[in-house]
Amino acid sequence: MNVLVINAGSSSLKYQLLNTETREVFTKGNCERIGIDGSFIGYTVRGGEKQKLEVALPDHKTAIKHVFQLLEEAGFDQSKIEGIGHRVVQGGWYFPESKVVTDETLGWVREVAPLAPLHNYAEADVIEICRDMFPSIGNVIVADTSFHYNIPEKAHRYALPRDVVDKLHIRKYGAHGTSHRYIWKTTKELLGDDVHKLVSCHLGSGASLSAIQDGHDMDTTMGLTPLDGLIMGTRCGTIDPATVCYLVREGGYTIDEVDTMMNKQSGILAISGVSSDTRDVEERAQKGDAHCQMALDMFFYRTSQLIAEMAQSMHGFDTMAFSAGIGENSDTFRSAICKELAWFGVKIDEEKNSVRSDDPRVISTEDSKIKVLVVPTNEELMIALDVQELLSK
Amino acid sequence: MNVLVINAGSSSLKYQLLNTETREVFTKGNCERIGIDGSFIGYTVRGGEKQKLEVALPDHKTAIKHVFQLLEEAGFDQSKIEGIGHRVVQGGWYFPESKVVTDETLGWVREVAPLAPLHNYAEADVIEICRDMFPSIGNVIVADTSFHYNIPEKAHRYALPRDVVDKLHIRKYGAHGTSHRYIWKTTKELLGDDVHKLVSCHLGSGASLSAIQDGHDMDTTMGLTPLDGLIMGTRCGTIDPATVCYLVREGGYTIDEVDTMMNKQSGILAISGVSSDTRDVEERAQKGDAHCQMALDMFFYRTSQLIAEMAQSMHGFDTMAFSAGIGENSDTFRSAICKELAWFGVKIDEEKNSVRSDDPRVISTEDSKIKVLVVPTNEELMIALDVQELLSK
Repeated sequence: MNVLVINAGSSSLKYQLLNTETREVFTKGNCERIGIDGSFIGYTVRGGEKQKLEVALPDHKTAIKHVFQLLEEAGFDQSKIEGIGHRVVQGGWYFPESKVVTDETLGWVREVAPLAPLHNYAEADVIEICRDMFPSIGNVIVADTSFHYNIPEKAHRYALPRDVVDKLHIRKYGAHGTSHRYIWKTTKELLGDDVHKLVSCHLGSGASLSAIQDGHDMDTTMGLTPLDGLIMGTRCGTIDPATVCYLVREGGYTIDEVDTMMNKQSGILAISGVSSDTRDVEERAQKGDAHCQMALDMFFYRTSQLIAEMAQSMHGFDTMAFSAGIGENSDTFRSAICKELAWFGVKIDEEKNSVRSDDPRVISTEDSKIKVLVVPTNEELMIALDVQELLSK
Repeated sequence: MNVLVINAGSSSLKYQLLNTETREVFTKGNCERIGIDGSFIGYTVRGGEKQKLEVALPDHKTAIKHVFQLLEEAGFDQSKIEGIGHRVVQGGWYFPESKVVTDETLGWVREVAPLAPLHNYAEADVIEICRDMFPSIGNVIVADTSFHYNIPEKAHRYALPRDVVDKLHIRKYGAHGTSHRYIWKTTKELLGDDVHKLVSCHLGSGASLSAIQDGHDMDTTMGLTPLDGLIMGTRCGTIDPATVCYLVREGGYTIDEVDTMMNKQSGILAISGVSSDTRDVEERAQKGDAHCQMALDMFFYRTSQLIAEMAQSMHGFDTMAFSAGIGENSDTFRSAICKELAWFGVKIDEEKNSVRSDDPRVISTEDSKIKVLVVPTNEELMIALDVQELLSK
């Protein structure tokens, strides 16, 4: 099935057209600066060179029109597109699994939007536009939280008053669920019966871990929002929640300023004082920059602590998999994190670790108690497979 | 040395007079409802029956006068008291160890008070009163944060902007430091060279863990404030810090209301819907109350996860010690937590576990990979020993 996967942000819209059987990616691109001066679409066709179309994109509807025009120019008119999969950041309490778009399911995306106001409203608008513009193509909602929906209550409940929690739908929702699901699927395909308890490490500029036992998510590091858990590019991760009260009371910040600070001005960027990109930070650290070294040390420290937490939630682990920007590409990060975990019996083969590849692969030694993998994630494929499954019914 | 230990709260004042050599406790008591109608002093002398003196306690100064009168009635006039030790909740950035009271050190207690406004101001007042009323007796400040002062930077730094962190002195301060220090000291006395990496579990209505390696604190679960970490009697422990922003934005609460909610209306009390006292909750759970059972499950789950985190910070652990109200008295809690940790090689002898005693003791089996102890804590003795050491100089 040829599936168009759409990932809409408040001012961007990423797309990818792929075939679920051959897994070939026909074309992909990103509409940037929607509603802002200087908008453009960067895209590639059949793995060719990156092209750039400078074009006014006053709104998402215009962006989608241009995307479909580019698809047609690349040889894919509407009739060849058999389904559209929409990534939705926050599925709230309605999406234990992916669902076909209807008035009802679309309404749910908007209903839960207060949990992710920057994303869900734009996503709902885009879903509606696609449905109305191309009524013959089926649309599917794939929520990034679905995979975490069924983690045990003891792991997802917050110890806040029950009436507050119930009324405001507060719980651990997690994120990167589609990626963690793909990482499990791929690991299972590779290891078969050798994997039961996997710590899935999605380490990008956003980063989270999941504890996956025989395909079931047992716990994850992100919380009510994607701020929680690991230290990230610009996010502080887990800190004493009373820090927010202290920042307002003693620092004189508004609650929105604190929210922005924790999400956009913290993490690797704040510790290093230089960049949210770990490559820059690593380079500087090698030249002796102490703040950059501290950013790395903290990232390794907290990541290994939370891996231990995830392992504890399964009473052990037999496998861990690195994925996403940092996890797939940085052998030094993988090596440093595994060194922290050596006491669990984690041992990687540095030669295997140094190989660069787009294929999922094992990098632990033969005698490592824990198997360590690199699994390039593919959320788009996972979304497309959901579309195929639901629309084939 | 005969030392009077004082632990002042905003409306209470606990005291204990003990001898550091014989460790005998001569008398102890608690002035309650200071500044509130219905104030009284509950106290015991030489382990006798509990007595109650109903007396107006309009302020801390009056309370201290009455305490000294009670001490005199028990045979201890001022001349027999050789030092006073003051527990201070928050030592901020000034107390890497205990210090003799001077104008300067007293000023520090007030300077760092914004970090613990409900405690430090009252404590500073009491220190000043004692110094002025009994100029011949030496006073010592013992901060509950001192033990955590030197945990590695990668463990105590918050990934927030450096200018904010520096200006507002934000870091992990921890708490229960005097207790964790005592637990290490006692464990070391008991096990000698068999203990190197201890996870110290202070589990009371307030609860925290410390990772202690050869006497040095490597990490702890409380953070900027004592809200962070484990689920406690009325505290929520670690949750996504963005929850605070969400509660203000979507719930309409003020920041002070959220602060109170997280500290006073959450935790075991909120999950169970019944009580902050784990004994009540356990009793109801046994009768089939699902919310109470969930409170226990969450407590066991989070405690074991954070024990794994503490272990990770030391790259392993050889010993764990249970202490404080729950840790010392609940064999079922100890058993449940140890069961969660069985995969680490934690194995307790249920017969030893069921023994009630005031002595520190080993409760793990001979073949347990991790030694498990119960160590009744004694913060007052630890404070008194600090007083003795500093005033003997």
